[in-house]
Amino acid sequence: MPLQAALREVADDIDRRFDSLLAVPDDPRADLYRAMRHAAIGGGKRLRPLLVAATARLFGVDRDCAGRVGAAIECIHVYSLVHDDLPAMDDDDLRRGKPTVHKAYGEAIAILAGDCLHALAFEILADDRTHGDPYVRAELIQCLAHASGPAGMGGGQMMDLEAEKTSFDLPTVTRLQAMKTGALIACSVESGAILGRVPPEGRTGLRGYARDVGLAFQIADDLLDVEGDEEAVGKALRKDGDAGKETFVSLLGVDRAREQARLLVEQAIDHLHSFGNEADLLRDIARFTLERDR
Amino acid sequence: MPLQAALREVADDIDRRFDSLLAVPDDPRADLYRAMRHAAIGGGKRLRPLLVAATARLFGVDRDCAGRVGAAIECIHVYSLVHDDLPAMDDDDLRRGKPTVHKAYGEAIAILAGDCLHALAFEILADDRTHGDPYVRAELIQCLAHASGPAGMGGGQMMDLEAEKTSFDLPTVTRLQAMKTGALIACSVESGAILGRVPPEGRTGLRGYARDVGLAFQIADDLLDVEGDEEAVGKALRKDGDAGKETFVSLLGVDRAREQARLLVEQAIDHLHSFGNEADLLRDIARFTLERDR
Repeated sequence: MPLQAALREVADDIDRRFDSLLAVPDDPRADLYRAMRHAAIGGGKRLRPLLVAATARLFGVDRDCAGRVGAAIECIHVYSLVHDDLPAMDDDDLRRGKPTVHKAYGEAIAILAGDCLHALAFEILADDRTHGDPYVRAELIQCLAHASGPAGMGGGQMMDLEAEKTSFDLPTVTRLQAMKTGALIACSVESGAILGRVPPEGRTGLRGYARDVGLAFQIADDLLDVEGDEEAVGKALRKDGDAGKETFVSLLGVDRAREQARLLVEQAIDHLHSFGNEADLLRDIARFTLERDR
Repeated sequence: MPLQAALREVADDIDRRFDSLLAVPDDPRADLYRAMRHAAIGGGKRLRPLLVAATARLFGVDRDCAGRVGAAIECIHVYSLVHDDLPAMDDDDLRRGKPTVHKAYGEAIAILAGDCLHALAFEILADDRTHGDPYVRAELIQCLAHASGPAGMGGGQMMDLEAEKTSFDLPTVTRLQAMKTGALIACSVESGAILGRVPPEGRTGLRGYARDVGLAFQIADDLLDVEGDEEAVGKALRKDGDAGKETFVSLLGVDRAREQARLLVEQAIDHLHSFGNEADLLRDIARFTLERDR
């Protein structure tokens, strides 16, 4: 399936899932659900659910299972954006071309909406509709909790806060990004393999792919931050430079950063050598990390 | 075991677990871990882990398993306090007699520390050291995610925000509190039963107990808020009245609220009629909800 069609299909699927998971109740919690919907529905590349689906497809996994896992991981991604945008964090007014949740609903509801999306992720994964085998569910949950906690995304965000105070070198920026965005991207690919009952020793190639794609994605993000169009990207840009944070681009320069991202994409695709055509979507996703304009 | 000894034993056990789970790394994440330790270690009644332990004991559950589940539920409780104390929420400076996390480490780290404790809860539960049977782990996770999400604690906190704007009646305040604090207390008892492999149809008495204890606990909290000593309680009191929020005490008056709580404690104990002496600790906990001074 061509990449654009797959992106659209996954985006529609995720929106439908959130629409049904987040039906607004007729009680005093209505604004909480509205805020969660504001954050979760519409917009977003849905890269993580796409990675779950593309990996799961290699192993003939049921598409609804992969869709549920994709929605769970996207819950974590979305909650992290909601909290990251808060005034005490990045203080952003715009996300995916819309007002950020705290701009639309206030800070208190934004904090709660993020927390509730966080809980929802694990509620989805623990549900037996996600997978009939509780071993698989438990492994998915362990993977996601680890990727989002202090050893993963949460720890990366903490390093990102420190980056405003200290000048990190390239290995430290690499580690920061591997945690901040890489961990959840890696977990998306890993989850597809878990759903496919691939044992850990059979996941080496996919893990290499995910690591390289995650890093290429982040370098592309840094390039977009410098060269991108705010309207197309849908959020405020050029904030890292203003905050004095080192990025791949500030440390390597635009040209070397772009070259590095290209090498990572090639390397990511090399990791898939044991797969045939059925991995073409994963290969296309790797290339897409550099070609996107948002 | 007398209640005081059990409280002390559980409190020590939980502190030891957090001390080992939250070892401060020698990297830029150090302050994140320090903030998590500040929130999680020392202080707190540890009522929820005690309820897990006391229920699990009825069914001969391994004590380390119950301790791990207690720590996971306490992670959720603690994260909710950290976020609840934020300036955008209750804006509290003092918690458990110490500065709140955002006072000690700043708002950004407080948000992240809460998020990471949230993730840690599910990481603990998904780990096979918590229980060898993945069915049990998945059921524990489902229970906790549901109790902490928009249908449980998170939804209750949202209603609590609305309570500042609307005058809730007694049924609505009851529902608010059943969600805000009741859901996690109920999940603690339920988790003990899950660990004990009690099938859902065998949990009716324990669920009734948990529901009544949760409500009694909250009425006692409202009474403490009006009558308590700030130093003993370790946090700012009398904020609900100032914010114009209806509580059990504002709606029923002090005397009827206290009487209602007493009835709930009796009723909670009645729900345990099918258990013998082995449930005495649960009975003592029910009585303790009214006798505590913090």
